[in-house]
Amino acid sequence: MLSIRMEPQSMATSLTGIFTPNMTPLDAAGQINEAELRRYIDWLIERGVHGLYPNGSTGEFTRFTPEERRRIVEIVCDQTHGRVPILAGAAEANVRETLRACEAYKEYGAKSAAIVSPFYYRLSPGAVYAYFRDIALNTPIDVTLYNIPMFASPIDVHTVQRLAEFPRIIGIKDSSGDIASMLRMMAAVETTRPDFSFLTGWEPALVPMLAMGCHGGTLAMSGVVPEVTRRIYNLAKAGQWLQARALQMLLTDLFDRIIFGADFPEGVRIAVEARGFRLGASRQPIDASQVVDRTELARIINSLLERIDGVQT
Amino acid sequence: MLSIRMEPQSMATSLTGIFTPNMTPLDAAGQINEAELRRYIDWLIERGVHGLYPNGSTGEFTRFTPEERRRIVEIVCDQTHGRVPILAGAAEANVRETLRACEAYKEYGAKSAAIVSPFYYRLSPGAVYAYFRDIALNTPIDVTLYNIPMFASPIDVHTVQRLAEFPRIIGIKDSSGDIASMLRMMAAVETTRPDFSFLTGWEPALVPMLAMGCHGGTLAMSGVVPEVTRRIYNLAKAGQWLQARALQMLLTDLFDRIIFGADFPEGVRIAVEARGFRLGASRQPIDASQVVDRTELARIINSLLERIDGVQT
Amino acid sequence: MLSIRMEPQSMATSLTGIFTPNMTPLDAAGQINEAELRRYIDWLIERGVHGLYPNGSTGEFTRFTPEERRRIVEIVCDQTHGRVPILAGAAEANVRETLRACEAYKEYGAKSAAIVSPFYYRLSPGAVYAYFRDIALNTPIDVTLYNIPMFASPIDVHTVQRLAEFPRIIGIKDSSGDIASMLRMMAAVETTRPDFSFLTGWEPALVPMLAMGCHGGTLAMSGVVPEVTRRIYNLAKAGQWLQARALQMLLTDLFDRIIFGADFPEGVRIAVEARGFRLGASRQPIDASQVVDRTELARIINSLLERIDGVQT
Amino acid sequence: MLSIRMEPQSMATSLTGIFTPNMTPLDAAGQINEAELRRYIDWLIERGVHGLYPNGSTGEFTRFTPEERRRIVEIVCDQTHGRVPILAGAAEANVRETLRACEAYKEYGAKSAAIVSPFYYRLSPGAVYAYFRDIALNTPIDVTLYNIPMFASPIDVHTVQRLAEFPRIIGIKDSSGDIASMLRMMAAVETTRPDFSFLTGWEPALVPMLAMGCHGGTLAMSGVVPEVTRRIYNLAKAGQWLQARALQMLLTDLFDRIIFGADFPEGVRIAVEARGFRLGASRQPIDASQVVDRTELARIINSLLERIDGVQT
Repeated sequence: MLSIRMEPQSMATSLTGIFTPNMTPLDAAGQINEAELRRYIDWLIERGVHGLYPNGSTGEFTRFTPEERRRIVEIVCDQTHGRVPILAGAAEANVRETLRACEAYKEYGAKSAAIVSPFYYRLSPGAVYAYFRDIALNTPIDVTLYNIPMFASPIDVHTVQRLAEFPRIIGIKDSSGDIASMLRMMAAVETTRPDFSFLTGWEPALVPMLAMGCHGGTLAMSGVVPEVTRRIYNLAKAGQWLQARALQMLLTDLFDRIIFGADFPEGVRIAVEARGFRLGASRQPIDASQVVDRTELARIINSLLERIDGVQT
Repeated sequence: MLSIRMEPQSMATSLTGIFTPNMTPLDAAGQINEAELRRYIDWLIERGVHGLYPNGSTGEFTRFTPEERRRIVEIVCDQTHGRVPILAGAAEANVRETLRACEAYKEYGAKSAAIVSPFYYRLSPGAVYAYFRDIALNTPIDVTLYNIPMFASPIDVHTVQRLAEFPRIIGIKDSSGDIASMLRMMAAVETTRPDFSFLTGWEPALVPMLAMGCHGGTLAMSGVVPEVTRRIYNLAKAGQWLQARALQMLLTDLFDRIIFGADFPEGVRIAVEARGFRLGASRQPIDASQVVDRTELARIINSLLERIDGVQT
Repeated sequence: MLSIRMEPQSMATSLTGIFTPNMTPLDAAGQINEAELRRYIDWLIERGVHGLYPNGSTGEFTRFTPEERRRIVEIVCDQTHGRVPILAGAAEANVRETLRACEAYKEYGAKSAAIVSPFYYRLSPGAVYAYFRDIALNTPIDVTLYNIPMFASPIDVHTVQRLAEFPRIIGIKDSSGDIASMLRMMAAVETTRPDFSFLTGWEPALVPMLAMGCHGGTLAMSGVVPEVTRRIYNLAKAGQWLQARALQMLLTDLFDRIIFGADFPEGVRIAVEARGFRLGASRQPIDASQVVDRTELARIINSLLERIDGVQT
Repeated sequence: MLSIRMEPQSMATSLTGIFTPNMTPLDAAGQINEAELRRYIDWLIERGVHGLYPNGSTGEFTRFTPEERRRIVEIVCDQTHGRVPILAGAAEANVRETLRACEAYKEYGAKSAAIVSPFYYRLSPGAVYAYFRDIALNTPIDVTLYNIPMFASPIDVHTVQRLAEFPRIIGIKDSSGDIASMLRMMAAVETTRPDFSFLTGWEPALVPMLAMGCHGGTLAMSGVVPEVTRRIYNLAKAGQWLQARALQMLLTDLFDRIIFGADFPEGVRIAVEARGFRLGASRQPIDASQVVDRTELARIINSLLERIDGVQT
């Protein structure tokens, strides 16, 4: 029905491709399982993810202490050892604490800090701007804005435009799934900041977003089926939109089952375990009523993996 | 950055292209201004709209009486005289009254009735299904579902899938702007009903929707700048996505000013008047505080029209 | 725990007590069942409702034609024959049509027209004001504002204040259930318009609203258990708040089951049938999945009726 | 219009009266200003607040580190020295960390920990239940649930009912302002747990909530005008509802200006400063556009204070 060729981008942006907001395995005592985390990182890189994003929403950043969040980034950076870039989630109690985390992350070797908009309180655009401005002026490391309006104060188009004036702010990860809004952001920023990265954090919007010029995604599903998200990205780069769209439909189906089948991100945990990792029990106690059918989920994942074997990249 | 070629569709769907949900001009007494309506219809067809959609939300269907709604469709069908297909909005008090409108519309020569989901009450998916099922089983004319969740009961993916089993239901016009949701609908329907039409009613989503395989749109802006929406559609069909995307940005800007600058659809009325039509005062009295800058709006429209002159189709 | 005495109000407001937004029985052909409607009206008046409110949301006003809406008011006025005041719902396509309905209602003998805020489109406060202003300046009969933000454009506090300047506007029926908002409205209006009526349309808020000085309610449940809503009102007037509160808890429980158990107002229909009336099938077709347990509902209603026998008024 | 006598409650609940969710003053370096905090605590107690609630939403708990949150509770407990009970806000990264905070708070002498529902992620009722259950089973100190659906996962009626089975859970602070919902909670709990406390955290609902049997409130405004909230509470206890209602109207007006005039809780900070305290700049940077008129705010507060001098308790 349709075919697209994507030409090489004239101006390289700093962040492209599929980043995995990886979960952090826990041991029987509920502590970070470092060995399993390292094994998981290796597995993801081997299966083609373009980068890692520890301490994202999928990574349950709010359920760790400030010290643990640093330790997670340290382990991920160490294990990655420069093979792929690290977008390290930093969201501490206030500007000062967030900056301290950025300083630590820089030392560990992270490429950029991904900073979620202030949450709990719903702040106005002016306050959201002021928060990121104070960070942009003082951070020792590049910063990616993280917009996730269902959980945190929204970062609107005008605010992104104003924040793009700071060189330290190099992109935005948008988990709203609102493609029209993302296009408005692009229109507002791309002439003055052609290097600014737009990454989607909403799986069902991946292919249309790539078709409209987004640079990639930070996708929970890439932690479950990195082979599939990589394949979609490659198909899009090659202009094979018909095949990309077909895989999008399957990815959306998997996403819907995992995301809407249990409190987020519990479904992701179970799905990653289906790929052979021991993530341990969540620190958020689970109600007995919320039991995911692991066998059914494994079946769907396997079926999806089998189908991409037939897709030519 | 990117170029796309869209190949001829293997299976013709019944509804393709850009349909205009035209407004209905009123005279000084607040009655239908038939002469101006006929002049407006001619102007739209001459500027390339693929179809007309009287009694849509832009057409203020709720502000006319049942008799007036029929008369509007009658005039539009008569004036169109088969040059383009008519999607005639039918939304009466209940199934029986809506069916009566469909019968009248068929006589006038409309191709399909576009039927909005029940509004005022927010119905569950089962009740929405039952409403359209009873219509589908009894209508003498094809029916297009009209999903506009900000104003009416939402038509969800599963309900579209169930309703696509009725041959009389030939498509859906979706004004949610939710591209991911539209893709889910397509995935659910396209294998069993390859003739089913997907039309977007949300201007900022037009190009990404076309890139994903939608068949067109019913767009208020096509009543203001039909040259632009036609150009975008042609560019998309020709695979000129880079240029289509550039025009999308400008169309979105116009849309945002018109839609968010005044209570819908008052901004559309003023914009259509800027193109040279006398639409008369709305039947919904306007508050003094809500005055649109007509000069500024005309300037933006003219600027947009000048810019498409430079775009090669 | 607490007892309250309510003193006689120093200034009589025009509308006080419990008004029933009565449903309209239909016959096997789906037409208005006049005989059953008359029988139902008598039954309600005999059981103590202070007034009737045909063509309310519970009365499914949107599912009747303009002619039928007039006929319903005509029958209710005729059958009531002055025994209780009639608040007649008027909500036609636009100001002119609504005014025509008001003229007809006046002839039938209605005390006031209850006019819902414009719906389908979500209008700004200024437009809501302009709509009611144009009606207030031209209506031949008193008008009650009807605020039901879940279905229609909200009428905010400032708009109520501005509209209270028109003598023809004599009160507001608020179905938001937001007691704090109602208190803000009262504070804004009661000094300049001590005769202005505040009626709640949300059953679970009845007793707290009465405790704060509301004048009554228009309550769907009064069409099911008029004995109970009358008893609550009498207890409140007598300052028997402890007993009123106890009955409130039971009324809320019944309301929750009826309102959240099926698409509104289908649960009310079934509950009224449990009291011995044949209401006929709804004009909105019902999905098979939405079947209410009539036996269980009858049991709860009977249990509630038995309990009020023991409450002293 | 109405008068109410509230009789002595037959069963004392553990928490009654007005609790102040006090802000924490900061010095020029952005650190806790202990001296000013102690001075503020004394001032509040002298003006009649029944208890203190450090680390509430008004107290900006999310903007402090875990260590600072402990230190704040320690100072407040020390300075209070048993004069009034302390409800200490505990909301750490997970169950284990929250329990550690509870242990520390117990040592400091807090009466109860107020624990907000999990935030950032929006959890289902089952997960909210599981979170509080695990806390209830292990806490060394009583726990008050904190429901604030605009910021955190909602705690619904059925979940409150299930959680009330744990003796350690002694009440709920509800900031939804939904009186009907609070009544449903009371109906669900009061027979089995007559000692369970219901406190409102929404100023505009205070008097209707007290009229319906709530035990008090945790109110940001009590940190600004403790004289007024105490007076309202005393009037309610004395059954002087007419006067309580009149003060409610004025309190709501102050609340609306403070809460909706700036990003919460910035307006509270400015208002407390108007009473003579140096709170220092917020840790959340403020945008230049968000400047509150301090003179106007001071005028309104003074006007309110003057008016209560004329109200007889």
